[in-house]
Amino acid sequence: MEEAHGADGNVEGTQVEIAVMEAMHKVVPPPPRSSLDKIKVRLKETFFPDDPFRRFKGQPPKKKWILGAQYLFPILGWVPTYSLSLFKSDLVSGLTITSLAIPQGISYAQLANLPPIIGLYSSFVPPLVYSILGSSRDLAVGPVSIASLIMGSMLRQAANPRTDPYLFLQLAFTSTFFAGIVQASLGIFRLGFIIDFLSKATLTGFMAGAAIIVSLQQLKSMLGIVHFTKQMGLVPVMSSVFHKTDEWSWQTILMGICFLALLLLARHVSMRRPKLFWVSAGAPLTSVVLSTLLVFLFKAQNHGISIIGQLKSGLNRLSWDKLLFDSTYLGTIMKTGLVTGIISLTEGVAVGRTFASLKDYRVDGNKEMMAIGLMNIVGSCTSCYVTTGAFSRSAVNHQAGCKTALSNIVMSVTVMLTLLFLMPLFVYTPNVVLGAIIIAAVVGLIDVPAVYHLWKMDKIDFIVCLCAFLGVLFISVQDGLAIAVGISIFRILLQITRPNIVTLGNITGTDIYRNLHHYIDARRVPGFLILAVEAPINFTNTTYLNERITRCIEEEKAVDHHQAVLRFVILDLSAVPTIDTSGVSFLVDLKKSMEKHGFELVLVNPVGEVMEKLQRTNGVHNFFGVDSLYLTIGEAIISLSSLLKEST
Amino acid sequence: MEEAHGADGNVEGTQVEIAVMEAMHKVVPPPPRSSLDKIKVRLKETFFPDDPFRRFKGQPPKKKWILGAQYLFPILGWVPTYSLSLFKSDLVSGLTITSLAIPQGISYAQLANLPPIIGLYSSFVPPLVYSILGSSRDLAVGPVSIASLIMGSMLRQAANPRTDPYLFLQLAFTSTFFAGIVQASLGIFRLGFIIDFLSKATLTGFMAGAAIIVSLQQLKSMLGIVHFTKQMGLVPVMSSVFHKTDEWSWQTILMGICFLALLLLARHVSMRRPKLFWVSAGAPLTSVVLSTLLVFLFKAQNHGISIIGQLKSGLNRLSWDKLLFDSTYLGTIMKTGLVTGIISLTEGVAVGRTFASLKDYRVDGNKEMMAIGLMNIVGSCTSCYVTTGAFSRSAVNHQAGCKTALSNIVMSVTVMLTLLFLMPLFVYTPNVVLGAIIIAAVVGLIDVPAVYHLWKMDKIDFIVCLCAFLGVLFISVQDGLAIAVGISIFRILLQITRPNIVTLGNITGTDIYRNLHHYIDARRVPGFLILAVEAPINFTNTTYLNERITRCIEEEKAVDHHQAVLRFVILDLSAVPTIDTSGVSFLVDLKKSMEKHGFELVLVNPVGEVMEKLQRTNGVHNFFGVDSLYLTIGEAIISLSSLLKEST
Repeated sequence: MEEAHGADGNVEGTQVEIAVMEAMHKVVPPPPRSSLDKIKVRLKETFFPDDPFRRFKGQPPKKKWILGAQYLFPILGWVPTYSLSLFKSDLVSGLTITSLAIPQGISYAQLANLPPIIGLYSSFVPPLVYSILGSSRDLAVGPVSIASLIMGSMLRQAANPRTDPYLFLQLAFTSTFFAGIVQASLGIFRLGFIIDFLSKATLTGFMAGAAIIVSLQQLKSMLGIVHFTKQMGLVPVMSSVFHKTDEWSWQTILMGICFLALLLLARHVSMRRPKLFWVSAGAPLTSVVLSTLLVFLFKAQNHGISIIGQLKSGLNRLSWDKLLFDSTYLGTIMKTGLVTGIISLTEGVAVGRTFASLKDYRVDGNKEMMAIGLMNIVGSCTSCYVTTGAFSRSAVNHQAGCKTALSNIVMSVTVMLTLLFLMPLFVYTPNVVLGAIIIAAVVGLIDVPAVYHLWKMDKIDFIVCLCAFLGVLFISVQDGLAIAVGISIFRILLQITRPNIVTLGNITGTDIYRNLHHYIDARRVPGFLILAVEAPINFTNTTYLNERITRCIEEEKAVDHHQAVLRFVILDLSAVPTIDTSGVSFLVDLKKSMEKHGFELVLVNPVGEVMEKLQRTNGVHNFFGVDSLYLTIGEAIISLSSLLKEST
Repeated sequence: MEEAHGADGNVEGTQVEIAVMEAMHKVVPPPPRSSLDKIKVRLKETFFPDDPFRRFKGQPPKKKWILGAQYLFPILGWVPTYSLSLFKSDLVSGLTITSLAIPQGISYAQLANLPPIIGLYSSFVPPLVYSILGSSRDLAVGPVSIASLIMGSMLRQAANPRTDPYLFLQLAFTSTFFAGIVQASLGIFRLGFIIDFLSKATLTGFMAGAAIIVSLQQLKSMLGIVHFTKQMGLVPVMSSVFHKTDEWSWQTILMGICFLALLLLARHVSMRRPKLFWVSAGAPLTSVVLSTLLVFLFKAQNHGISIIGQLKSGLNRLSWDKLLFDSTYLGTIMKTGLVTGIISLTEGVAVGRTFASLKDYRVDGNKEMMAIGLMNIVGSCTSCYVTTGAFSRSAVNHQAGCKTALSNIVMSVTVMLTLLFLMPLFVYTPNVVLGAIIIAAVVGLIDVPAVYHLWKMDKIDFIVCLCAFLGVLFISVQDGLAIAVGISIFRILLQITRPNIVTLGNITGTDIYRNLHHYIDARRVPGFLILAVEAPINFTNTTYLNERITRCIEEEKAVDHHQAVLRFVILDLSAVPTIDTSGVSFLVDLKKSMEKHGFELVLVNPVGEVMEKLQRTNGVHNFFGVDSLYLTIGEAIISLSSLLKEST
């Protein structure tokens, strides 16, 4: 009958009308399902949207065992078919990322106020664990700048790393342990969607702010300041820097600027020509070697350049006896573990997904969380602090042509050899070059084009980004993050609380009804007000909807009085995915109040869940019967038009 | 062209196709508006959905002034046309609610650990203020049980009402002041929607729990216990009651049970026969008079029955000098003010709206908030604690036939006379009868049918209700509330994070596409997968949507291989009201990844905001062009089918 309506524009003859009424499509409730069934489906959609057990279905038991083992230990998936040519690629990429991992490991550990050696330990054990459990082929595992910064700054509120280094180390290991527990739990309980609440906008602002905070911290080593502030914010650091001008050392500054320029140049070259990725990949290690040689040759340590000093050779000690579950520190530890755990997880999972989609394979988010979590739990027992998949190193790994997680094993073995035999070489490495390496690494986190893109696409996303950025700079790293997440969530709630209600009109000669203010060839249908609600109807918006619909009707009456008198209000529910008890009461009350004022409320196309709930109301009130429920707006209008004519 | 498709079922001839292609409707972006315009509209929709200044438009300046004054002081709206017959009704209803207000005022003040006289003060000034500023005609203003309970329990954490009554009084007045500030600010800044976050489900559970907590507190006076626990929870109160069996006084218990039975009987009678509303309305005052006489005649105060004792005659003292802004207590005060303010506001506004819709007049929510807020600010300076529109008394007011806010003035004057002349009569009033009055009043807050309705309609609403109930009973009043609000909001976020994606099919012989699992006569269209997303697309759900859509395609491929090969994935965006930057990136990535796998992604009917953002992407990527954007599913299928034929 819609076609009939469309075909000759206006339906007039009674004959046609009768035919029309017969062809009308009924709105039916969805096929009945038990509450248990519905809960099952809902739980599955919430926790297993990717249906990870799909490929187990219909397999023989032996195959199921193999698939299960491969699911738990992805290494079993690629080892049996591993070949020499793959190994060549992995060896090259593994060595390339080692040259980044060693200097960055030392630097990031210092950023977290930990001894440099911890950074190397953390580049040895966790990559091994990940290569067994992880499903990404490109992830290069190790310490990362943001998580290091957060851990350093949060733990410093509970213990002083300079006066009480042992306690600080204990807190760091225990926080890492908690971070691992949080990460693994999110994976096991399939709550991975929690990290989705960190939107791109939030992360862009947060990363940029954190990069500046991290760079500011490097002013200590870049300027050679001895007594540096313990605070992190932009204001206290800058004021501290300019109050200590007497401690600035020109030799350090000169060396710092030279190496920073070298590193940034290398970065620039690699960005211009992706094939030259090895230039920026090799630059940090080259800088370390060069600067160490310089210091050694000129005995620069006697001329105001501070050096790392003696590092103990040997592999990771077991550290599970250092885990500290003292109630005095438990609050700080758990908070630090939670924040660093979630932040590093976000980075790791995002990096894994990015490269998986580039190479077109799948990474199971929840599985990855378990792998990263276990890696940190094992790490916390073997003198490592929090690690994850690092973006910059993974990019290098990818560009260097890695094929499997074996590149992580190569890196791990190389770091092991360094720990065993090469530690004495780092004695003369100047701290200033580590600072330069960190700055050159975090500069890439400031993504100006992304900010511009946000500004162009969505002003509120831009505001979220800005709040995260300013919050991190001027309040604190964790508060900036919390504020940005808060605004993002508030924005979603506001969209629900103030849903769009649009007035629809008929596109002449068709059966299409679209927004009057969007499609200029849409026309009002005399005697009808057609509204579409574009949000779930629930307790947060029933009051608003009531006021808004009342206003629409009054405006319509004011506008339309020269045409047919308004009789019917059609509410298109196509875009209302769910409704709650308050929403149903609202519809019932709305219908009653409209009848009082001489209008009739008609609902169009309630979807499955909404229809079910309306039907349950029907049992009690018999409110929304056949003549107030239609499948399409067109059918509603034809059917009601004939009523209109009968009554006049 | 939709009609053509519908009319002959399957379009085959090339002639028709060409006609069809010409008749195709383009998806156009909405008419351009400046960012400023958009922000203006958005702000208006967020803060002024009811368009309160609409009736000012087009009026002469003098009329505008009058309307403005009437807006600020609704009393000016009804006083000029007031008549003797209206006064008669208001006098009767005013006296009726006074007979409730006096005993309840005294009782509720005790519930808040305040001197009984404060309850009477609070029934004198606030009703006067409200009758000038408030727009509801039925609201009976005064202290209420829940807000009294919350204030008493929250302030008790900062000061002991028994050992330090003056400090406690100061805290109560200051909290009331803050509650008023919070309420008025919500109204002035038009943030009234904040109280919408307390859903019916939350309130039902919360009220029932609070009613039980309040009743448990009355065991002190009902059993005559002298040393009663300071805690509120179910467990500590019951254990305290049974540890103090030696303090139970049988005379008190006997008297309590008799009067409680009397009051509940009166309530029962009034509920059965609404015309006999005066039975339950008069019962509390009758009980007070009767019990006072009994005590006086039998000198029962010497037989273990505790009495109120001497109350000072005279009107409210000014108390603005008692407001205490000491930093030690400021945290508690502000928290108490916030919680009691919002809770009492919720009750007041809900009551006002309920009776307004019964009598079919309008109450402006934000205006009411300002009125209630100002009333509490004035109250806090005149020895009153937090007041609002009480549900039970307003119901009695309504049933007694009140016509305007004058019934509040009548109540106020009667309470004033009581304060001036009748205070000595309360000396012998036994505390047990006050306990019985409170229990009889709060029993009505336990709404079992509403809970059953929640269970039937919506299991999650029921769970929210249960959590609020159990939280209040076993944790604390404010935590129970917080948990329930948290769950309600989490539920909404979860709906956004895990949106419905439905597979659509064609209802044979029409141009209607509906959910395959809902409408059994809907049929798959060979070669096409038609998906509809029913939620805003944003950062919280892009990962899920990606996994879910991938799964849909894989399932479709598994099912459909005997029919035409899947070529096109149609994404119906009709029910996607908004999209953010992450959402746009998701669509772009999805299209790319589909192309890699040999499918084509087509979008149908993006609404205004979504279309605008897609267009902005188009500028950069030129991604969603004419042949991947259609106005209806039908048009998309016809147009793409012809492509399909050309290619084969």
